[in-house]
Amino acid sequence: MEADGIVESPPSTTRHHFTHYFMGEIKPLKEWIKDKNIVLKFINACFRGIGQPVFLNNPISGLLVLAALFVQNPWQAINALLGLISAQLMSMVLCQDRGGVENGGFAFQGLLIGSVVTAVSAEEDWYGWLSFPVICLGAGSVFVSSALNNLFGRVSLPAFNMSFNLVTFLFVTATTHTNDFFPQKPVAATIPWIGNDIDWAEIFKGLPRGIGQCYGCDDVVSGCLVAAAMAICSPIILWHAIWGSFIGIMVGISLACPLDLLYNGVMGYNSVLTACSIGGVFMLISLRVHLLAIVSAVIAAVTSLALFQFLGVLGLPMLAFPFCAIAALFLLVTTEADYFVKIPLDQVTWPEDHWKRYHRMNITVQNSNELV
Amino acid sequence: MEADGIVESPPSTTRHHFTHYFMGEIKPLKEWIKDKNIVLKFINACFRGIGQPVFLNNPISGLLVLAALFVQNPWQAINALLGLISAQLMSMVLCQDRGGVENGGFAFQGLLIGSVVTAVSAEEDWYGWLSFPVICLGAGSVFVSSALNNLFGRVSLPAFNMSFNLVTFLFVTATTHTNDFFPQKPVAATIPWIGNDIDWAEIFKGLPRGIGQCYGCDDVVSGCLVAAAMAICSPIILWHAIWGSFIGIMVGISLACPLDLLYNGVMGYNSVLTACSIGGVFMLISLRVHLLAIVSAVIAAVTSLALFQFLGVLGLPMLAFPFCAIAALFLLVTTEADYFVKIPLDQVTWPEDHWKRYHRMNITVQNSNELV
Amino acid sequence: MEADGIVESPPSTTRHHFTHYFMGEIKPLKEWIKDKNIVLKFINACFRGIGQPVFLNNPISGLLVLAALFVQNPWQAINALLGLISAQLMSMVLCQDRGGVENGGFAFQGLLIGSVVTAVSAEEDWYGWLSFPVICLGAGSVFVSSALNNLFGRVSLPAFNMSFNLVTFLFVTATTHTNDFFPQKPVAATIPWIGNDIDWAEIFKGLPRGIGQCYGCDDVVSGCLVAAAMAICSPIILWHAIWGSFIGIMVGISLACPLDLLYNGVMGYNSVLTACSIGGVFMLISLRVHLLAIVSAVIAAVTSLALFQFLGVLGLPMLAFPFCAIAALFLLVTTEADYFVKIPLDQVTWPEDHWKRYHRMNITVQNSNELV
Repeated sequence: MEADGIVESPPSTTRHHFTHYFMGEIKPLKEWIKDKNIVLKFINACFRGIGQPVFLNNPISGLLVLAALFVQNPWQAINALLGLISAQLMSMVLCQDRGGVENGGFAFQGLLIGSVVTAVSAEEDWYGWLSFPVICLGAGSVFVSSALNNLFGRVSLPAFNMSFNLVTFLFVTATTHTNDFFPQKPVAATIPWIGNDIDWAEIFKGLPRGIGQCYGCDDVVSGCLVAAAMAICSPIILWHAIWGSFIGIMVGISLACPLDLLYNGVMGYNSVLTACSIGGVFMLISLRVHLLAIVSAVIAAVTSLALFQFLGVLGLPMLAFPFCAIAALFLLVTTEADYFVKIPLDQVTWPEDHWKRYHRMNITVQNSNELV
Repeated sequence: MEADGIVESPPSTTRHHFTHYFMGEIKPLKEWIKDKNIVLKFINACFRGIGQPVFLNNPISGLLVLAALFVQNPWQAINALLGLISAQLMSMVLCQDRGGVENGGFAFQGLLIGSVVTAVSAEEDWYGWLSFPVICLGAGSVFVSSALNNLFGRVSLPAFNMSFNLVTFLFVTATTHTNDFFPQKPVAATIPWIGNDIDWAEIFKGLPRGIGQCYGCDDVVSGCLVAAAMAICSPIILWHAIWGSFIGIMVGISLACPLDLLYNGVMGYNSVLTACSIGGVFMLISLRVHLLAIVSAVIAAVTSLALFQFLGVLGLPMLAFPFCAIAALFLLVTTEADYFVKIPLDQVTWPEDHWKRYHRMNITVQNSNELV
Repeated sequence: MEADGIVESPPSTTRHHFTHYFMGEIKPLKEWIKDKNIVLKFINACFRGIGQPVFLNNPISGLLVLAALFVQNPWQAINALLGLISAQLMSMVLCQDRGGVENGGFAFQGLLIGSVVTAVSAEEDWYGWLSFPVICLGAGSVFVSSALNNLFGRVSLPAFNMSFNLVTFLFVTATTHTNDFFPQKPVAATIPWIGNDIDWAEIFKGLPRGIGQCYGCDDVVSGCLVAAAMAICSPIILWHAIWGSFIGIMVGISLACPLDLLYNGVMGYNSVLTACSIGGVFMLISLRVHLLAIVSAVIAAVTSLALFQFLGVLGLPMLAFPFCAIAALFLLVTTEADYFVKIPLDQVTWPEDHWKRYHRMNITVQNSNELV
């Protein structure tokens, strides 16, 4: 049995705090859009989808992230949008789970595909042919998402951004850097670790970059805009994102990793995503869960470095595989003392909301960390 | 709940169409052989097993495929038979599922092992020692099949030819091309893509070769014989096989893949197998399922190219791993509108028969695309 | 439904055979320690944990294995102990399954991590910094164990030492041999197979070494001490360990593997672990199960060689991945004739005890090889 204690908020006639109109899922907007026409709904779903890679089901956050993508690189942003729209349309054509479609839960995989495929491409910007695979892969990712949701759902796990990872990895591996039509950048030589040479200003810039890298952005301003998007939707997510990026850097230093991984945020983004997903999004936030999120971020950082080295030998990017693996692992951790309360997948909204709903009911969730 | 609507054909006193005596599973033969002695049953099972790699549970098709193997290379054909017989005997000794044993559902893994292990061996033909690992691997594959049927069955998926893939991959990886006893051919240098140099006659020959490659045969005549075996048993399978091989080539051209992959059918066979398994064998054929089969073939082709590049770096063959992965993925795709009707695994026969049984009952299968 | 026929031994007033006081789980000690203080319990759990990697839930065996580790290399033994204690403490803090904690079922992963991380390190002995990752990884392995027990348990499989494999592999892959802080030994050049050059005395020494390698020990005396630990706890385990090590060498010779793999026991240890786990630990011992254990050992040996070659290209150790994969596979094998009786996971003790309990009840276990 999963949590009965987390129930829908009762209808309320009281005036809401003003944060109610921009935080979390923006419930007033959700209500308002219900009887609007399909174009408005489509736009709403797309903007929600832009925030989904960092668990922000919020169109205002989506707007900020879109700004971050354009600050990074307009061509990358446009391809990201093409992938997003392609995936959103295909998820509607394919009659996928209504909740997922309306919240951009399929579209965001296309956004990530478009962004990352453009980022790793060796072609110059505005090489228009690249939009063709982006659109195809975006549409194809919906099939993969549907199958993975089905498969992961059997063990009560979300499929995270696994669909993006698989589809992008297939494309990058199929083309490689020697391809005639869609060559990839060869993996850059890494800057070896030299303890005395650490540029602490760059390390500090690595903090926001680690957050921006969740979208394939290594620009400091982009990273800050993504952080701002988090702040609007859910401060708890922002808190864990900062922890995640910080831990990525700390683990990198402890293991003497190549310096550029610290500077450009590559050590951080998997830890950011893992810490956010454990710390509030898929588990009820508490001190113990916060500590668990930190442990998961440490292990995600080690896994990042390992996979970076492993795939680097073969000239391939690691994408967000470490996040998917480690977040899934930690969602499977159980204790006899029920230390960790898992949010049932169909009731996931945003961390603050989970907390409020749980404590308003003042009920000890029965067996809630057992997976059915 | 899975489909109740797909039931056994009722006993019929009417005269059958003459195609009844050679198409599909050849039900009259199945009836006739029931009370015959074990030698006849064994031969029947073996010939059915020869057709099983391309989903043809039909001894006449098996005979044609056997001819295809001998046309390709008699030594390869004999080792394929040794693997087949070894696996069939072991499946009987190990008391495996009776239906699977009688239809050659275990034996065909041995056939593929024998054929492919011989094809990738660097030794000259008629190097007799090679039959020793072929027989051992064929017998060993039954254990793997049994375990994988058990594991995949829990999510209502067939295990495809995964057992062949794993066993062959282990052997090839364990020996490599430097081995003293059983060296493998080193991976040939690929012909890089040069758009103007495409030999369209060879591309056209790649169509039947893609079908023949399902058995490790790159001979055009062999490919045509395999296609003929399909035509006898199930035109729907042939139709999807041709689509699969065609899509493999199209995807290869779109991604500028090495030219020899197009010429020798290597880009095609995973798409062939995937398209056939989605388009009718494990799903009820319909226009939507046909389109799904085409999408699955496209993704299988991209996956083939990716895995070919990935494993090529390590000097290893990709076998039919892409088929297993992508076919499993697409069998897991679900839609809210129940677009795709999955055939319950214990009722899989051949596409035309599924269609007839389904429409004779004129019942909407309830929840048939939910996996139990 | 799983076996009801295997029940707890009834309380008995009869005098026990003297072997009762040192064989198997040492039940008298288990009873005695129940109301003792936590320090004694902790020591008991740790010593049981030392034997657990080879399925010996027995503190006397643990003592012998500890001696084996010190004979091999005191620094390695001390790091192994640090990992053990770290994992044991974390499993208590994290409120893991009480049975597992009291039997050292979490701690042993830390022991293996400490031992193997030290063995593959390129630093000289007594490089104290190495204890830092050992302690962290030992503690981290408990999270992984918990998750994997949960995941594997859904298909009624044990998680074996998968947690150790994953954690160690991550660390080794993350650091590699170029790391500044924790470099790994580069993979040594292998001695190629030359049939006439086989040193049969070394091959013979490879037998105990194969058993010792289960702890990362290539010393002959260490291997003999581990064998002695097995003899005390369960002769059936020892019997299968010898078979496993022997089969590893035979398969290596049949496939012309590099000679050093035969000499230092690397070909053997995965077969040892697989044979023991199938032959009595997780299945009820019988002639058929013994034969199954031998087949599984053969396949584990081929898998070892394959993975050794595959990961050797990337400069990585194979650890005990082949054991986990092949033992899991064979535990999933089913037959229509119920040839193989699986022990329900929560009733696993030691092979002789399974046999006695099963035959005392004289009940045919119903459907016991079906997994729920």
